[in-house]
Amino acid sequence: MQPLTPASLNPAILNVEYAVRGELAIKAEEYRNQLKNPDHELPFDRVISSNIGNPQQKGLDQPPITFVRQIAALMEYPALATLAPTAFPSDVLARAAELQSEIGSIGAYSHSQGVPYIRHSVAKFIAERDGFTGHYAEYSDPNAIFLTAGASAGVSLLLSMLIASKNDGILIPIPQYPLYTAAIAQFEGKPIPYYLSSSTSAGWQTSVPDIREAIAKAKKEGTNPKALVVINPGNPTGSVLDRSTMDDLVKVCEEHSLVLLADEVYQDNLHARVDDPSVSFTSLKKVTHALQSPIPLISFHSTSKGVLGECGRRGGYFECTNISPEVRALIYKMVSVGLCPPLQGQIAVDTLVRPPKQGEPSYALWKEETGTIHKALASRTSTMTTRLNALPGVKCYPSPGALYLFPEITLSEKAVKAAKEKGKAADALYALELLDETGICVVPGSGFGQKEGVWHYRLTCLCPGVDEYVGKLEKFHKGWVEKYGV
Amino acid sequence: MQPLTPASLNPAILNVEYAVRGELAIKAEEYRNQLKNPDHELPFDRVISSNIGNPQQKGLDQPPITFVRQIAALMEYPALATLAPTAFPSDVLARAAELQSEIGSIGAYSHSQGVPYIRHSVAKFIAERDGFTGHYAEYSDPNAIFLTAGASAGVSLLLSMLIASKNDGILIPIPQYPLYTAAIAQFEGKPIPYYLSSSTSAGWQTSVPDIREAIAKAKKEGTNPKALVVINPGNPTGSVLDRSTMDDLVKVCEEHSLVLLADEVYQDNLHARVDDPSVSFTSLKKVTHALQSPIPLISFHSTSKGVLGECGRRGGYFECTNISPEVRALIYKMVSVGLCPPLQGQIAVDTLVRPPKQGEPSYALWKEETGTIHKALASRTSTMTTRLNALPGVKCYPSPGALYLFPEITLSEKAVKAAKEKGKAADALYALELLDETGICVVPGSGFGQKEGVWHYRLTCLCPGVDEYVGKLEKFHKGWVEKYGV
Ligand SMILES: Cc1ncc(COP(=O)(O)O)c(C=O)c1O
Ligand SMILES: Cc1ncc(COP(=O)(O)O)c(C=O)c1O
Repeated sequence: MQPLTPASLNPAILNVEYAVRGELAIKAEEYRNQLKNPDHELPFDRVISSNIGNPQQKGLDQPPITFVRQIAALMEYPALATLAPTAFPSDVLARAAELQSEIGSIGAYSHSQGVPYIRHSVAKFIAERDGFTGHYAEYSDPNAIFLTAGASAGVSLLLSMLIASKNDGILIPIPQYPLYTAAIAQFEGKPIPYYLSSSTSAGWQTSVPDIREAIAKAKKEGTNPKALVVINPGNPTGSVLDRSTMDDLVKVCEEHSLVLLADEVYQDNLHARVDDPSVSFTSLKKVTHALQSPIPLISFHSTSKGVLGECGRRGGYFECTNISPEVRALIYKMVSVGLCPPLQGQIAVDTLVRPPKQGEPSYALWKEETGTIHKALASRTSTMTTRLNALPGVKCYPSPGALYLFPEITLSEKAVKAAKEKGKAADALYALELLDETGICVVPGSGFGQKEGVWHYRLTCLCPGVDEYVGKLEKFHKGWVEKYGV
Repeated sequence: MQPLTPASLNPAILNVEYAVRGELAIKAEEYRNQLKNPDHELPFDRVISSNIGNPQQKGLDQPPITFVRQIAALMEYPALATLAPTAFPSDVLARAAELQSEIGSIGAYSHSQGVPYIRHSVAKFIAERDGFTGHYAEYSDPNAIFLTAGASAGVSLLLSMLIASKNDGILIPIPQYPLYTAAIAQFEGKPIPYYLSSSTSAGWQTSVPDIREAIAKAKKEGTNPKALVVINPGNPTGSVLDRSTMDDLVKVCEEHSLVLLADEVYQDNLHARVDDPSVSFTSLKKVTHALQSPIPLISFHSTSKGVLGECGRRGGYFECTNISPEVRALIYKMVSVGLCPPLQGQIAVDTLVRPPKQGEPSYALWKEETGTIHKALASRTSTMTTRLNALPGVKCYPSPGALYLFPEITLSEKAVKAAKEKGKAADALYALELLDETGICVVPGSGFGQKEGVWHYRLTCLCPGVDEYVGKLEKFHKGWVEKYGV
């Protein structure tokens, strides 16, 4: 009998890296356990998991949207409509009854692609969001929408299908969300990095000429570019694409026959909208449609971000544009092997795309709750940016969208050397000492990919008390500078 | 711009087949839509989806277990504990409060491996189920348990990791549950079929000598057997393994250094237990432990089957036995890319492994509800077996467990020829005509793999009115025999 060893497993698995939940996150978990012991002797009394955009986690405790949870509870236990009718507003009772009559029990497997009724609601939402005035199905086909267990499941599936050989490449922004490099490694494709540039005036920018260059270089090396990943608003950068860049992205895909993978999970996190409701999100679907472009486009959305922050139920969808019925049938076949996406994730998608309307009983509370979350996020993002920028050797570009900051930190040679001795990247050492001293867990920039010798870390703007949080970051940074210099 | 075509996709995807939700299921869906039109002109007025073990689906409407749903509703909307306290028994309120204090909001991503607290409960359940009397963690390590989005997600993940090259083979029972062939095709391994035999006296049997032969044959052909899949109780066969066969299965794995993949999702569907509570399920974990065998074992369980039938929430777990911490760390890394299993699936696992105990307020109702489901399933299984066996050319072996029957049907040369002309297997034609005439959707045996020229179909024992259901099957079969002979 030979034991099962890593060496006997799929070698592609060994190459997968996923920094968001890597070494630091595991250590943070250990600290959290240690803190349960009153004699813990740690220099902090709680762990703040800023490594992951997880607004409702313990310690951050962003409250869920009441409307979402009321409907979810009624779907779980429909008898509540008669047992406790006064616990629910009438529009919630009506919505739950409507969903129940369409779906039946949420304890049943649904259509593998997701409940058809909810897919229609998604299509309507997409058409309205993009300002399409005809019948929604002419703009967004419910049969081209797949509900998923979070955006992650959709991204992994699509990459597993698009990567047909070891020479197939996927263009990804650097810095990127590490799901992309992880899935590309798992399915044995080649990442083709295109670097985002940062400047104090414009923040993080996507350069289409740089993408063209990356394509040319990849082709020269024998890599066949298959798809272009765009994350908008960006993670970890928080940047938002302008329209002319989006036009050019579509044109690049046309020229090189690329599938455009549009990760738009932060579409509802635009901080400027708090002060100016005319600010709106432009989807790559809208741009593709306006240009009448034939490029195959897959757009991803999720219930995990925005103001819902419903990460735990694993809800999301992707929409296929300019994808043939034959290819869609293959996608259907693959999702059917997993049977169906979680029903409570699907229900959350319904509430995401059909929030209460003005005049409905739930509207006022919904408006207040979502407004509070939007406002708090925008104000924390701006406070944190200002205060981090005031620290020696820290450059923190404006982050107009998403949930994160991605400050650049100058790390001295002494620090780089000290890190090397521990077998670590310098920003990983920074993040590790930050965790050890303050209990704040962030992700080192190296986890997102970065140019040699440029150091960053990513942290979320999701803390409850911003003063205490930034205070800890400041104190730690000053101590670090004393120890290692700038 | 070149369009995206199936030919440009991962060729492994094209080879995936998944019969349970294949052509017939899609046609059934179309009929279901057609029936909404009052002038539908179909010869039936409802579609019965017997192709899939989905007890709570519309039309079957197996009621959910109240205890499960009450806890789920409180997790969604904790305010109900004060808004509607009388709607919940005190043990439900206490359980929900306990889970909330451990988990926080179910809107947060949990530990990627699943909530640690729930994993402890699973470990306790496993130890108790297997009659282990020491401390549960000595028998089942909570750190070796991974909560999953249904058993499917776990099976797919493990196969993706175990298949390291195109020569790696996975031993699967034939007939099998098509998840296995689908995942093996996707991850480009080789299925190594071992055939189950059927006899009127003993029903479906697993023959360990046949497995040895299959291994020898595979090795001769250059295939490297990596793992042995065992489904117990069986799907589609309904058979239950005896202890001596289980002992031998463990020994085969020892001899050939195979990972044993024990799909035990039907462990709570043992029909004999309805009349004899001393009948109990023997897990492959228990056998491995009793033999003090070092074989790596992964055991899968699910919230979808048993009496819970909570398919839609995607809950389940797998337990790793004799799997090194290094390999477990790799599994952890892979699940962390998908962030976490759905929280409502995890909560359902908790209720699965911690049902109400005698003396607790919820016990009586739970006992009644679960008893009713067990009894109905056992009685339908036996009625259907008897009546199907009475039909000309039909042999239906006893099905002591799971949710299915897998009758063998003799199909005449005329039928085989007619099917061939339509480009179909003969049992696929049978299933298609059954659907067209009665609205009953079953899965042809060819979807589960079968010996040449032997025909079957699989149907679930989940219909509400067994008389009407079997009546339709009988009438159809008689018509078929008139048309094609036996
Ligand atoms: C850019 C981006 N895409 C996708 C996801 C996946 O989220 P989920 O799977 O919860 O929808 C995340 C999560 O943080 C993300 O930041
Ligand atoms: C043998 C077997 N294994 C696994 C599964 C997967 O079920 P789930 O993913 O819902 O847990 C099924 C479902 O029918 C099954 O029959």
